[in-house]
Amino acid sequence: MMEVHAFATPNSVKVPISLEEMGVDYVLKRVNIRQGEQKTSAFVALNPNAKVPVLIDPQGSTGTAVTLTESAAILVYLAEKTGKLLPAGGDDRARVFEQLFFHASTLSPAFGNAGFFKRLVSEPQPLAEARFAAEAARVLDLLEVMLGERRFMAGDDYSIADIAHFGWLWRRDFSGMSFDGRPYLARWFEGIAERPAVRRALSRVEALISQA
Amino acid sequence: MMEVHAFATPNSVKVPISLEEMGVDYVLKRVNIRQGEQKTSAFVALNPNAKVPVLIDPQGSTGTAVTLTESAAILVYLAEKTGKLLPAGGDDRARVFEQLFFHASTLSPAFGNAGFFKRLVSEPQPLAEARFAAEAARVLDLLEVMLGERRFMAGDDYSIADIAHFGWLWRRDFSGMSFDGRPYLARWFEGIAERPAVRRALSRVEALISQA
Repeated sequence: MMEVHAFATPNSVKVPISLEEMGVDYVLKRVNIRQGEQKTSAFVALNPNAKVPVLIDPQGSTGTAVTLTESAAILVYLAEKTGKLLPAGGDDRARVFEQLFFHASTLSPAFGNAGFFKRLVSEPQPLAEARFAAEAARVLDLLEVMLGERRFMAGDDYSIADIAHFGWLWRRDFSGMSFDGRPYLARWFEGIAERPAVRRALSRVEALISQA
Repeated sequence: MMEVHAFATPNSVKVPISLEEMGVDYVLKRVNIRQGEQKTSAFVALNPNAKVPVLIDPQGSTGTAVTLTESAAILVYLAEKTGKLLPAGGDDRARVFEQLFFHASTLSPAFGNAGFFKRLVSEPQPLAEARFAAEAARVLDLLEVMLGERRFMAGDDYSIADIAHFGWLWRRDFSGMSFDGRPYLARWFEGIAERPAVRRALSRVEALISQA
């Protein structure tokens, strides 16, 4: 069975959501980042970058196990393996990758750094805090305009691009962000959050905290 | 013919390199970011995110033109269209995506922010500057260890993952980074930089500055 090494983080949650949507069974293995477990030698052997999530698929393409890092790369892997949530070709496929890379290169660093400089820095860095808060807000405004023109992040169909964006938007309070004045984004978020597969995944991921 | 709207930037250069490697003809259209041309209404109509590069393929999958943003998404699109520099399946394909997303989520923001806080910030933000310099150095150390075990970034074969990483490593001085004490990385970089296709692309991209 597939193993997902994860915690209740914006990047971790994408993988259980995808697996639930795809109907794939998995074991969720807690990596308690509040206790620094992502830096243990056992975990760094799985991911030298010391980040959750990690996927272990006992049945890689050659029949032997494959260990994979980078949440968006895991989503692409699972989508191509199951044939779900990523168009096999055409311009719609390109739009999914465009959003996955916009997520990785722009949304995710903006939200992560906005939260860090707002909450975790040891002494105020006001220009840095303002820079990342403005960038996170700019990202939300771009998505708001886009969702006025499309139903989902990469077009008319739900895809792994929606799941990728969902992670940080679910944890937007950390970054000091909200959907106020962004009605399309709020409606999109509610539509994703109420999907049965998403609710199952969030429930399993949130249980990792109470067990920690 | 394909159009690449770009300047001599770490992210722009990936697209001409890929096209040269794939043997695809293209027109390079200068977007002079030193004069803020990426914020003009004409450019924002191509990319609402106001970033280079942008690819326009007059022959998208349905025969009509497709406009695509996000440099790594453009690389995936070109690789799938030409069947080059991205394995069609197997674990090696997953490794390419793992590196593309490591590039987008980790290397690229670290290098960009390290350079910004070192060179462009209006007053010193010492913790922010130190944070991103340390993160950029950590990324280089991870790549150095990896290149001690593999010839290229995603395995035994040259791929779009190498081209993605090349962009910022070519502009590493901006971020205050070097290959000192990282011999595998230095050797890898030299191997890529001397490829005829890479030299042609760099020559065309650098000419955009002298024309500017």
